[in-house]
Amino acid sequence: MSENKIPYKIYLDESEMPKAWYNLRADMKNKPAPLLNPGTLEPMTAQELGEVFCNELVKQELDDTTPFFEIPREIRDFYKMYRPSPLVRAYCLEQKLGTPAKIYYKFEGNNTSGSHKLNSAIAQAYYAKQQGLKGVTTETGAGQWGTALSMACSYLGLDCKVYMVKCSYEQKPFRREVMKVYGANVTPSPSDTTQVGRKILAEFPGTGGSLGCAISEAVEAATSMPGYRYVLGSVLSQVMLHQSVIGLETKAAMEKYGVKPDIIIGCAGGGSNLGGLIAPFMGEKLRGEADYRIIAVEPASCPSFTRGEYRYDFCDTGKVCPLAKMYTLGSSFMPSADHAGGLRFHGMSSVLSQLYDDGHMEAVSVKQTDVFQAAEDFARIEGILPAPESSHAILTAVNEAMRCKETGEEKTILFGLTGTGYFDLAAYQKFHEGIMTNTVPTDQDIAASLAKLPKV
Amino acid sequence: MSENKIPYKIYLDESEMPKAWYNLRADMKNKPAPLLNPGTLEPMTAQELGEVFCNELVKQELDDTTPFFEIPREIRDFYKMYRPSPLVRAYCLEQKLGTPAKIYYKFEGNNTSGSHKLNSAIAQAYYAKQQGLKGVTTETGAGQWGTALSMACSYLGLDCKVYMVKCSYEQKPFRREVMKVYGANVTPSPSDTTQVGRKILAEFPGTGGSLGCAISEAVEAATSMPGYRYVLGSVLSQVMLHQSVIGLETKAAMEKYGVKPDIIIGCAGGGSNLGGLIAPFMGEKLRGEADYRIIAVEPASCPSFTRGEYRYDFCDTGKVCPLAKMYTLGSSFMPSADHAGGLRFHGMSSVLSQLYDDGHMEAVSVKQTDVFQAAEDFARIEGILPAPESSHAILTAVNEAMRCKETGEEKTILFGLTGTGYFDLAAYQKFHEGIMTNTVPTDQDIAASLAKLPKV
Repeated sequence: MSENKIPYKIYLDESEMPKAWYNLRADMKNKPAPLLNPGTLEPMTAQELGEVFCNELVKQELDDTTPFFEIPREIRDFYKMYRPSPLVRAYCLEQKLGTPAKIYYKFEGNNTSGSHKLNSAIAQAYYAKQQGLKGVTTETGAGQWGTALSMACSYLGLDCKVYMVKCSYEQKPFRREVMKVYGANVTPSPSDTTQVGRKILAEFPGTGGSLGCAISEAVEAATSMPGYRYVLGSVLSQVMLHQSVIGLETKAAMEKYGVKPDIIIGCAGGGSNLGGLIAPFMGEKLRGEADYRIIAVEPASCPSFTRGEYRYDFCDTGKVCPLAKMYTLGSSFMPSADHAGGLRFHGMSSVLSQLYDDGHMEAVSVKQTDVFQAAEDFARIEGILPAPESSHAILTAVNEAMRCKETGEEKTILFGLTGTGYFDLAAYQKFHEGIMTNTVPTDQDIAASLAKLPKV
Repeated sequence: MSENKIPYKIYLDESEMPKAWYNLRADMKNKPAPLLNPGTLEPMTAQELGEVFCNELVKQELDDTTPFFEIPREIRDFYKMYRPSPLVRAYCLEQKLGTPAKIYYKFEGNNTSGSHKLNSAIAQAYYAKQQGLKGVTTETGAGQWGTALSMACSYLGLDCKVYMVKCSYEQKPFRREVMKVYGANVTPSPSDTTQVGRKILAEFPGTGGSLGCAISEAVEAATSMPGYRYVLGSVLSQVMLHQSVIGLETKAAMEKYGVKPDIIIGCAGGGSNLGGLIAPFMGEKLRGEADYRIIAVEPASCPSFTRGEYRYDFCDTGKVCPLAKMYTLGSSFMPSADHAGGLRFHGMSSVLSQLYDDGHMEAVSVKQTDVFQAAEDFARIEGILPAPESSHAILTAVNEAMRCKETGEEKTILFGLTGTGYFDLAAYQKFHEGIMTNTVPTDQDIAASLAKLPKV
């Protein structure tokens, strides 16, 4: 095994790291539809967006023609603290499966936030700092995004207010504590610090909160405090832009060894990891320079691509955010309470939605117990404890590799390993105890949720 | 900052990774004293040791003349899954401190076990497998070693029985769960699976257990089941040997850029990390080829080097293990209950003890609240959430760098960042809440514990 020319882990040199983000929209013939104002249902103007997001990010959000955005020096310096991330050749997994396929994964979990979210967190915090703002607000559910943003803000000396879904705040004290290590102000949501929070508390005094409510509080806090803006860790086109660093590094690392993937696989919740990983490959595909099979993997309990509709919907349950045209299960959709595997957003990035609708990529959904089995197998074979989110991609990569074993094809499979599972051990425990289930929404559940949407 | 020739992270190529471990004892004029049989107080023979440890490890334990041991191919392949570990140039920390010192750290936390312990775990598991054994037993307190051993055994298909101190088992369910991901059999200690466990349970039905008791159970389990041996994650000379991979990689990475450290700093509990990091540097020093200041850092609440005596003592509280000549606080010494920072072993590696006694290295002790403050500062500046253990070295490195700031000296400081703090957030929380204290043993405490030792 060790005589192979390709090492177990390919690290780019610092000098080979991307100096610009790639804006996939520039190469799309059918551009993603614009965000709409939730009040007027008209396209959001830069000015309207500027009340919520900081100016440079608004520019990035609205620009669908400029192919590259230079990564500012300060962000590149920050990236060097945890990037380049390794591209791993999964020799052990290949051997264990006995497949002729060659498997690679881009591992984004080797930083304290534990996931790829940090790539966009530092960019968003940086532009807020550049604009002379005091701080940013956001919401967090499981805590990956909140941790990443806390780290970025701490580095830049920016105030960071995180509204954390109350039941997570109580059930995940360690996630909360990591954010506090980074000096973030973490408030369980709903809280009495915002109007919307007080209203919900008055109505439902014992509620454990929801992501929708936390978003509403974070947006209210940002827009009511001078010098603050709101930031979001997925779904938005600006986030896809920043996350392109994943795909750009991956492509550079593969090209260094003359490798080209046949199949590219990523898990998909809001789409930030998948969009980032596939960006430069999809660009080649759209320009007719190469062809790749690209597969989005989603949980069967939150199947926006495979069972949702492509239409305008709110990005949040509270309906305070702009509407996006996307594959969606409806903004009031909630995955079953037994769902532990992340990727629980009801919709999907507009960029990815348009690409999927245009037939440039496939989507599959997988069952959560299969996902955790794949996660545990992977941990034992490759040594890394994966996040449940990432394990959706692992499972699908293994399935494709086993198909190669049947057909004898030596395909090259690339997947995104977005993060680590250190903070998901309660879910692993559920899996070990055999009490994890696989509830999927009925057609009626989805139809009911979609029926509540405005007709745009 | 980015124009510097030396990158933020230096990764060796796979071809540059060490192919042999370095046995520091070979270069020691004063060899460490032999282990003694706890019954006869005579030096342990290979045969006696072979009842507890597997044969190849006994050979390594007893060999103080062979300078290099080839690392078997299978272990090198496993190392490639998570090694080489990065040698990081702490540019951000240097800038923040405004020091002319150049700071480097070798980061051993980028693997799922979260620490350097995996380096020896895979070696010990490998030799057990080679000997045709069914499995190994061990004890674990905080869980770092147990996790590392579980990963190694899972990779090799070896059974792994971990006796975990009962209060840790209950208070650290996630540590326990990681071990279960890797298929380990984790038993809270004391348990009814061993004679010694049943005896203790009968006497103290409500006890939360102790490391000493867990060791006794693990040794009994290993010696009473055919095909099992006991393994230990620190203190032993074989462990120092395996951990030399840390120092060998570090030295190779520094030499690649023409860098030589002036000061080398490592935290010290049983000594496995410190011994591994300094090994090749200390070798040069002993051979008169170079000079380095080498500093061991220990917690003020468990100060074996700085306040202990150099004499024979049992390696375990239960007095079933051999005696080692070492700096010790006495095997009945227990650090104060408010001590949360790891490194709680009462003694110190015989190899390091002899080197310290011969004046080849220094030792300092530090207060735990200072350690946690250094840990939090480091997390914010360098982006990595450090283990409390590692943070002893961080604090001392920062102190040395500040001394350089005063004197204007451009010294090169190297320290070992042994692991991550993902499973130590309860301690961080205590620190944030301001309820962490700094109880240190009185002279009477230490004298009382030492008075119980046999006169050898």
